[in-house]
Amino acid sequence: MNPTAIAIDLGGTAIKYGLVDINGQVLWEGIVPTPLGAKEEIINELLRCADRVKAANPQASPLCIGIGTPGLVDYTTGYISGAATQLPSWENFPLGAIISREAHLPAYVDNDANLMGLGEFVFGKTGACRNAIFITVGTGIGGAIFINGELYRGSKNAGGELGCIPFFYEGRQVYWEDFVSMKAMIGRYKNKKNETENLSAWQIFERATAGEPEAQAIIAENAQLLGYGIGGYINVFNPDKVIIGGGVSDTETDYIERVKEAAFVYALPDCCLGLEIVAASLGNKAGFIGAGFFALSMHEKAAP
Amino acid sequence: MNPTAIAIDLGGTAIKYGLVDINGQVLWEGIVPTPLGAKEEIINELLRCADRVKAANPQASPLCIGIGTPGLVDYTTGYISGAATQLPSWENFPLGAIISREAHLPAYVDNDANLMGLGEFVFGKTGACRNAIFITVGTGIGGAIFINGELYRGSKNAGGELGCIPFFYEGRQVYWEDFVSMKAMIGRYKNKKNETENLSAWQIFERATAGEPEAQAIIAENAQLLGYGIGGYINVFNPDKVIIGGGVSDTETDYIERVKEAAFVYALPDCCLGLEIVAASLGNKAGFIGAGFFALSMHEKAAP
Repeated sequence: MNPTAIAIDLGGTAIKYGLVDINGQVLWEGIVPTPLGAKEEIINELLRCADRVKAANPQASPLCIGIGTPGLVDYTTGYISGAATQLPSWENFPLGAIISREAHLPAYVDNDANLMGLGEFVFGKTGACRNAIFITVGTGIGGAIFINGELYRGSKNAGGELGCIPFFYEGRQVYWEDFVSMKAMIGRYKNKKNETENLSAWQIFERATAGEPEAQAIIAENAQLLGYGIGGYINVFNPDKVIIGGGVSDTETDYIERVKEAAFVYALPDCCLGLEIVAASLGNKAGFIGAGFFALSMHEKAAP
Repeated sequence: MNPTAIAIDLGGTAIKYGLVDINGQVLWEGIVPTPLGAKEEIINELLRCADRVKAANPQASPLCIGIGTPGLVDYTTGYISGAATQLPSWENFPLGAIISREAHLPAYVDNDANLMGLGEFVFGKTGACRNAIFITVGTGIGGAIFINGELYRGSKNAGGELGCIPFFYEGRQVYWEDFVSMKAMIGRYKNKKNETENLSAWQIFERATAGEPEAQAIIAENAQLLGYGIGGYINVFNPDKVIIGGGVSDTETDYIERVKEAAFVYALPDCCLGLEIVAASLGNKAGFIGAGFFALSMHEKAAP
């Protein structure tokens, strides 16, 4: 049996987790809702996830635990500094050390978008490359940057905030993600339709597929604004690959085609040589697959 | 004597050149106008520059020639692909091989903004760091990215085009540099004043210093739009340092202060930890100092 890790992707609404091997194979998996409330509740749920993986896989001897979490993380120590808007209580504590102690396994922690990107970069269907950017479109825009085959984290592990570039649109001056995230798309759709009840991005995609012009227009606009920003990043990074993750990448091949088309409006021809723009291929498993691989890689480096 | 190189910075209007040692010391320097016209004329002028350096420094034995040039360059071979708007004839030819053959010294060629950035990154007054971005504000916006102490060029040597991110402003949808370069600033100023005659960015800075409100407003706007974009790059790269070069960095400390202020409007607090935003310190010598250092580094690597 290959070396395995307990792998956890902590999200604002769900915890996706499983047993993952060094080749990115998912040997077992589960999902539970993220507890609302104090950080202790969340930590206890993460520990129960680890226990469930062990209980369901008695034959396995996972070497370590990998956790992807929103917010700013020092990946070398597993300390959470904060800044996760989805989990307000989630700051200023040594998550890695707590989980290591309580679960009796070394735990390694990094930012969730970094680990989703890592999962896709290493194990995605699109194959190996040297330089890539990963953009995930969800409540916000998450990003991960790969330089010379390595995840680039920035000087204080706070880089890769690809959604947080300035964007001036319709007279408003905000971040790119404020127009391009699924949350923004839903808001713009509800505005357009004067709807007040909650709805999901999926519902808008469904209505578009059913032929509703407003839904189609809002999705087309979203793809276009996403593509424009990606075009800029192509000029900055001249990458081999742009990987687009998040829910949208599963929905319609048409959406990704629109994104590409808009990217080439801004991307300079020289920066597009050999470039591929592709949809992520691991779906909502990317985060914990990346977490497992990250943990096993860190564990190997830490071995005496 | 330290190892030295003949170092040349080919610009759209002038060729700055000199004799540079491995520590970035300028031992001799010169400047000539860039010939207008066919690429052969420009190549001959570059060769004459090399001859003048040799003639003026008979005691020196430069090991190689380093050249920074506008446009897309394969720095491994010295082949110019093109895309230099300032020098339309300057494309699809092996500049490195030609200069090596004619000057009887190995010649190494890279993009000019890369080498300006390299000069500042390695020898600028602000001291060593790991991750930095360099932004030069001239006719366009040039950029260079430093990751883990190395110049990052992208997969096909076309990266670092930091001016070419989308920008939506006043209902126009263009590149950031189209609003933020000195060329753009001059255009906006002339528009505002209904002036038709040519003037330079310096003249606008002079008029602002003399108290002219329109000049002051245009410069303030330019600094603000420059700062906004830099704020975005801080979130992407979480660098140790942002180095602002080009003519503007020499002009007024006030300008750099305004740029910083605007950058912090967009930069996330976590991405600013330990960050310095500084003016470049090598002035118009940065390009050829970087070219000399680049050539000596490449030469050392190529040595048997």
